[in-house]
Amino acid sequence: MASLRDRFEHAITPAAFRSYVAEFLSTFFFVFAATGSAMSSRKMTPEAMMIDPSGLVATAVATAFALSVAVYVAVNVSGGHVNPAVTFGMVVGGHISIPLAIFYWISQMLGSVIACLLLKLMTVTENVPVHSIPDEMTGFGAAILEGAMTFALVYTVYAAGDPRRGAFGTIGPLVIGLMAGANVLASGPFTGGSMNPAYSFGSGMVGGSFKNQAVYWIGPLIGAGVAGIVYDNVVFPAQTPEDAVRGVTDGIGV
Amino acid sequence: MASLRDRFEHAITPAAFRSYVAEFLSTFFFVFAATGSAMSSRKMTPEAMMIDPSGLVATAVATAFALSVAVYVAVNVSGGHVNPAVTFGMVVGGHISIPLAIFYWISQMLGSVIACLLLKLMTVTENVPVHSIPDEMTGFGAAILEGAMTFALVYTVYAAGDPRRGAFGTIGPLVIGLMAGANVLASGPFTGGSMNPAYSFGSGMVGGSFKNQAVYWIGPLIGAGVAGIVYDNVVFPAQTPEDAVRGVTDGIGV
Amino acid sequence: MASLRDRFEHAITPAAFRSYVAEFLSTFFFVFAATGSAMSSRKMTPEAMMIDPSGLVATAVATAFALSVAVYVAVNVSGGHVNPAVTFGMVVGGHISIPLAIFYWISQMLGSVIACLLLKLMTVTENVPVHSIPDEMTGFGAAILEGAMTFALVYTVYAAGDPRRGAFGTIGPLVIGLMAGANVLASGPFTGGSMNPAYSFGSGMVGGSFKNQAVYWIGPLIGAGVAGIVYDNVVFPAQTPEDAVRGVTDGIGV
Amino acid sequence: MASLRDRFEHAITPAAFRSYVAEFLSTFFFVFAATGSAMSSRKMTPEAMMIDPSGLVATAVATAFALSVAVYVAVNVSGGHVNPAVTFGMVVGGHISIPLAIFYWISQMLGSVIACLLLKLMTVTENVPVHSIPDEMTGFGAAILEGAMTFALVYTVYAAGDPRRGAFGTIGPLVIGLMAGANVLASGPFTGGSMNPAYSFGSGMVGGSFKNQAVYWIGPLIGAGVAGIVYDNVVFPAQTPEDAVRGVTDGIGV
Repeated sequence: MASLRDRFEHAITPAAFRSYVAEFLSTFFFVFAATGSAMSSRKMTPEAMMIDPSGLVATAVATAFALSVAVYVAVNVSGGHVNPAVTFGMVVGGHISIPLAIFYWISQMLGSVIACLLLKLMTVTENVPVHSIPDEMTGFGAAILEGAMTFALVYTVYAAGDPRRGAFGTIGPLVIGLMAGANVLASGPFTGGSMNPAYSFGSGMVGGSFKNQAVYWIGPLIGAGVAGIVYDNVVFPAQTPEDAVRGVTDGIGV
Repeated sequence: MASLRDRFEHAITPAAFRSYVAEFLSTFFFVFAATGSAMSSRKMTPEAMMIDPSGLVATAVATAFALSVAVYVAVNVSGGHVNPAVTFGMVVGGHISIPLAIFYWISQMLGSVIACLLLKLMTVTENVPVHSIPDEMTGFGAAILEGAMTFALVYTVYAAGDPRRGAFGTIGPLVIGLMAGANVLASGPFTGGSMNPAYSFGSGMVGGSFKNQAVYWIGPLIGAGVAGIVYDNVVFPAQTPEDAVRGVTDGIGV
Repeated sequence: MASLRDRFEHAITPAAFRSYVAEFLSTFFFVFAATGSAMSSRKMTPEAMMIDPSGLVATAVATAFALSVAVYVAVNVSGGHVNPAVTFGMVVGGHISIPLAIFYWISQMLGSVIACLLLKLMTVTENVPVHSIPDEMTGFGAAILEGAMTFALVYTVYAAGDPRRGAFGTIGPLVIGLMAGANVLASGPFTGGSMNPAYSFGSGMVGGSFKNQAVYWIGPLIGAGVAGIVYDNVVFPAQTPEDAVRGVTDGIGV
Repeated sequence: MASLRDRFEHAITPAAFRSYVAEFLSTFFFVFAATGSAMSSRKMTPEAMMIDPSGLVATAVATAFALSVAVYVAVNVSGGHVNPAVTFGMVVGGHISIPLAIFYWISQMLGSVIACLLLKLMTVTENVPVHSIPDEMTGFGAAILEGAMTFALVYTVYAAGDPRRGAFGTIGPLVIGLMAGANVLASGPFTGGSMNPAYSFGSGMVGGSFKNQAVYWIGPLIGAGVAGIVYDNVVFPAQTPEDAVRGVTDGIGV
């Protein structure tokens, strides 16, 4: 067991710093595509208050494609979390230390804010869309939906990074993106399908509204924590000490 | 040949229980995305009685993405059936015992019902869409279409899980999802493209209508059974006893 | 060099017969999804004469997904041609004998006709859409476009089946489907994006019009032949005799 | 260190010539699908001045699918750049010589021009759409957006071709296509999402307008150069001399 000081020192090595850059860049890539696609759809359907199914497909496909890539390019460096909920799920499972996780969160939120800021400034007249819920839904119901979808996402992250899966690991980053895209399609007009507190934080900050922000933190963090516990203990428990040593989704790779 | 009692004991081990949890979770993930995407499309096109092609694309893409993931995360634990028709096809081919199959069916139907219930309760004002067929079509014709599409799906499941395919197995879970998505696009306004009795059961129960339920059981089960027979005996027969020992799509993996 | 009689005997073995069944089934799966998705889009936009971009996306995605699967499930048995133009390209490159190719063509055309017939009969009131070209285009121009797109498709088939590519072969069936889907998006309102004489033959026969049929045979066959020559001789020539022994896309696999 | 003369001789070998043909063909395949899909969408929505979200999805999916294939079929021959910005990024990283890069650029631009010309001539009445920016945006802002997106694309190309990634390399060509598709969705109504000077050059030349051409050269080239530097030096620095020897994305493969 490392002391607190050791753990913090572990979080400020060159390898750790490369992980933070990787998380920053991947979250930037992901949020740029996801937020930009929602802005594009909105610009193309100016007369409507809400986007139509083709706009939802645009956002979902952008989410799936960009998250697959964001995980892929970071997976060997930082584990490719790209999402504070994923990082939290890894903390709960004991696969990453808390000091490291804090710097991951900061990197992810920074990447998200910069992506939204760039889009807002360069497109000049467009505002950044903020995650929100329709009038008839409660914040509690929205948090449950976001939590269930984040459970599915983080469970997939665990499965994709499990070294016992052998060759299936090769398509792991793709599968993580597909899960997020499917959930955006399922929840678009209800919660927007964030599953990612950094994503909601960045668009909330630049878009200028934190109205339902708690929904997009509480739901995803609880869903992610439960996913880690269920995967590691119920569905796919380690049967030998070696099994417990996890692969690519764990903290620092290089 | 195991006795009936041995077979039932085989179905209540910890490994078997993990398989049931895996089938429950994967069917939940799949039905949540597929049903949720249909509800989202409907909410975004309130004036129309029936969704337009962009709504069909939304549902088909959600189906393809979510089924790929659902198979992927369960494949090493339960074989990743996510569908009573697939389980039935595996029974016909002799790759899974009947007691085990019964618990698989229960887990799949439970996962589907819970997914539909969660969507209905959390979105408050939306009802769950139920698989149905247009007036001009007969139940017989619809069952034939669902049967032909399930034949294609289960044939793909057999091919994806065949260890003689070597490295191609790596993308097997993706390919299974793509087949389902393509068939949803082909059959959307005709039968809805279920190919999965648990999916139709869950939406029927929560949506409150079992009107065409038989179509979505008889067609898929027959199509799945025929697929197992054709794959194992006509197209790709085992040429050595070792060939007959199948891989990842078989029952319990861990 | 085998005599004509030997070659015909080679074409009537049990292994050859399994190849024909595999080509029949895969072409059925592909044409069912591609034609069915066009029928679905049309049924959902009855007021318009021609489908809109969302209908084009539906058909293109169905084409991409279904062709990937169709190639995947047949690749170890028949090479996964699913298209008389691909078979012709393999004949030109010397990778499959003419008698075998003739039976491949028959199997592919039969699979296409049965798929269209099933869709027409079961949907009752819908007719099968036939590939056609707009008034302002010439048959010559359309054949050039179909030829260029089939060149791209068959070139991709050659690349995907080249054993010198190592691990990249694993995603070969996916990539073949993606090429076809991209070309459908590029050519939808111009030629329909067939690239496959069996596909156009089946929909022409069941839809009751052979008006532009020649376009969909001459263009693709020439494009496919040229692709085989260019790939094998210009871009990626065999540098040792072993290189000339090709992999999965060649004739009979088992 | 090779002399200038040696380097030029290296650029006119048979292996180098095959690379140029591969770059020409792959850029042709990519630009044909990307430009053709924009023309198709426009033809299907004649009444509107600008395409709607479903047309954007069509172009983005065509971009993603076709670029994946274009990279895939060329990767073992030329490295699969398909884009002068990628080639420039490889020059900056020292992975390809300048003389070779010049011929790559010529091949890529030629492939793009021929693709646009073929589409314009064969579809008869359609003009080729040219990349442009809306009135409210500045050329500077557009160049920043194109630069940021090209940074993401070239960073992905570097990651996909890094031999230290092991089995993840298998899906590298797919991931490159997905990044481009996601960025098209993010930027469609703003800059069009080119990220590729050859693509913008071809459509500009055949479409008859070079109005914003500088945006599509300056932004992408700077973004690509920065990506090469960041990947090689900050995120994933070589730790042994062997690491510096890069894999498939480098220059000539065969």
